[in-house]
Amino acid sequence: MKIKRIHNFNPGPAALPLSVLEEIQENFLDFDGSGMSITEISHRSPQFEDVINDAVSRTKRLLNLGDNFHVLFLQGGASMQFAIVPMNFLAGDKSADYVDTGTWSAKAIKEAEIQGKTIKVVASSADKNYSYIPRDVSFNEDAVFVHLTSNNTIKGTGWSEFPDTNEVPIICDMSSDIMSKPIDAQKFGLIYAGAQKNVGPAGVCLAIIRQDMLDLIPDSVPTMLRYDTYASKNSLYNTPPCFAIYTTDLVLKWLEETVGGLDKMAALNRTKAAMLYEFLDSGDFYRATAEPDSSSLMNISFRLRDEDLEKLFVQKALENGLGGLKGHRSVGGCRASLYNAVPVAAVESLVDFMKAFEKENG
Amino acid sequence: MKIKRIHNFNPGPAALPLSVLEEIQENFLDFDGSGMSITEISHRSPQFEDVINDAVSRTKRLLNLGDNFHVLFLQGGASMQFAIVPMNFLAGDKSADYVDTGTWSAKAIKEAEIQGKTIKVVASSADKNYSYIPRDVSFNEDAVFVHLTSNNTIKGTGWSEFPDTNEVPIICDMSSDIMSKPIDAQKFGLIYAGAQKNVGPAGVCLAIIRQDMLDLIPDSVPTMLRYDTYASKNSLYNTPPCFAIYTTDLVLKWLEETVGGLDKMAALNRTKAAMLYEFLDSGDFYRATAEPDSSSLMNISFRLRDEDLEKLFVQKALENGLGGLKGHRSVGGCRASLYNAVPVAAVESLVDFMKAFEKENG
Repeated sequence: MKIKRIHNFNPGPAALPLSVLEEIQENFLDFDGSGMSITEISHRSPQFEDVINDAVSRTKRLLNLGDNFHVLFLQGGASMQFAIVPMNFLAGDKSADYVDTGTWSAKAIKEAEIQGKTIKVVASSADKNYSYIPRDVSFNEDAVFVHLTSNNTIKGTGWSEFPDTNEVPIICDMSSDIMSKPIDAQKFGLIYAGAQKNVGPAGVCLAIIRQDMLDLIPDSVPTMLRYDTYASKNSLYNTPPCFAIYTTDLVLKWLEETVGGLDKMAALNRTKAAMLYEFLDSGDFYRATAEPDSSSLMNISFRLRDEDLEKLFVQKALENGLGGLKGHRSVGGCRASLYNAVPVAAVESLVDFMKAFEKENG
Repeated sequence: MKIKRIHNFNPGPAALPLSVLEEIQENFLDFDGSGMSITEISHRSPQFEDVINDAVSRTKRLLNLGDNFHVLFLQGGASMQFAIVPMNFLAGDKSADYVDTGTWSAKAIKEAEIQGKTIKVVASSADKNYSYIPRDVSFNEDAVFVHLTSNNTIKGTGWSEFPDTNEVPIICDMSSDIMSKPIDAQKFGLIYAGAQKNVGPAGVCLAIIRQDMLDLIPDSVPTMLRYDTYASKNSLYNTPPCFAIYTTDLVLKWLEETVGGLDKMAALNRTKAAMLYEFLDSGDFYRATAEPDSSSLMNISFRLRDEDLEKLFVQKALENGLGGLKGHRSVGGCRASLYNAVPVAAVESLVDFMKAFEKENG
């Protein structure tokens, strides 16, 4: 059967670098001379230890992490962390601040509330359908942490700069923009990110935790739900999701060695987003939905002037080799996710198609 | 680079059918005409829905499950279930019975105790280093469930028949023998199994839950830690481990269509185990460690008469294309795991090698 590849604008699982996929394919029956597939080798083998150690080292270098950070590979996605974060860090009557910037923030808040934890929602953009990022938020000094969602995949908004929290550590869901640009890690107590958007396939959640956070975890938390279990065992307390970690390692290698690091990745991401936003703003057939000063570089949500044409738009785009442009089922409309592995050429093709579609249907 | 494959006796992650690996490899850049890799397609796409629905249907057919069972795909492995089982089913002062037959049973018990749950350890084989399965166990009538480990990967023992629990539902960790033989599912409230031994790669945990168990879950359990979340959403509440589910589906297809179902699989597994046990019993250079009436068909633990030779044995075996024969680091010795995907020919090669090694070192 002939291989046909499309441009993949899916919001996650999402595009992976073609060179990574080809390397996986080539070595799939015999990993690193083991005579076994990566899906068959022991997680305690020297071959797999090299994989996970490499993934940890690359994460530390790419994000410029100090020695006081642990890199963890978890399961259950970011949604699992919504539950585990308050379980680990809000023992007794400890309190945390949450900022509500969309569906995923709201789910994180809900999972703390289900457990009866004390949290304060210090800001929300629900009043304007989550189309903006709140400014000038006041945080509580006695908060154990401030919870943020760095990029809102569904609404297409993101924090361009993180707020000043007066030394209170930020816990941040970076699922949809991790490794898309450099960050100042030192202000974060915990970063977590489902890998399936910017750094790998579904099935592994990358987490970066600051050493001092590990002291907060009460004894009553079960072993597999404690961040210190993963930190003390290099994520090998039990069998980890080996294939997903291996694929993530290859993506991190691509980021370091092919792209050349996060400064260069960020420049490419800015170029791609600017190309699409500028086109959206250039006429009135399409319009971006996020407020300009809050717009995401990763997920660009837009509507057609005539919303009845959106279904046809998505369908015709796919026929033209441009996939994954449907908006989230909860909000409708259209969305192009321009994660790290989406090349500039894909965005050029998208803009060309959008011009042609407008000409035909405008 | 030339592909070289070995016979893989690893305890998990473990051997997968070569035809499954080849199918994954062939389609890796373009899954089902999508123009995307299976690692890139949306979990909400029709292509992936077909995959997960197929995996559910095949599981139901292979295990002959009634309509009152749900098939779930979870993350975190069996170790995560050790924590979630008491969290879901032991609200308030409810109590459960646990049988302690080895390392994994003991870990399940520990995770209930960490949470302060009421459990009774009604039998244990710890007195003889877990070399046997307890008989004539008395269960408590007020237990919400009885927890068993069907096969003890580390010690090489297994339940040849499940005990009579007086209608109390059994919750069973079947990680190392799921799908190795037919079972009478109706007596089980919940079966869970890390896929990486008999049915797939690491990164997904297959669970089968009886409808009535879902009524026991208290509201205070977070969304991602509740079995009913997965049951009501077909394991698609959030992004599941797509690649691991896809690979598992292909293994289930192989079990149904190539092997011909679990009766045939069980016959093959009995043949393989008999071949090795008979050889072990035929002389005194090697000896099986499990008591004969409790021995596992999946994991065959053995020692050499001269234990100092065991390291050389494992090393020479690998040089002869026989991998994964080292015993678990907690017990030492040797172990051959003869899971579903290990062919009869691999066991023949192993016995031939063992004869030659004995001749050379006996």
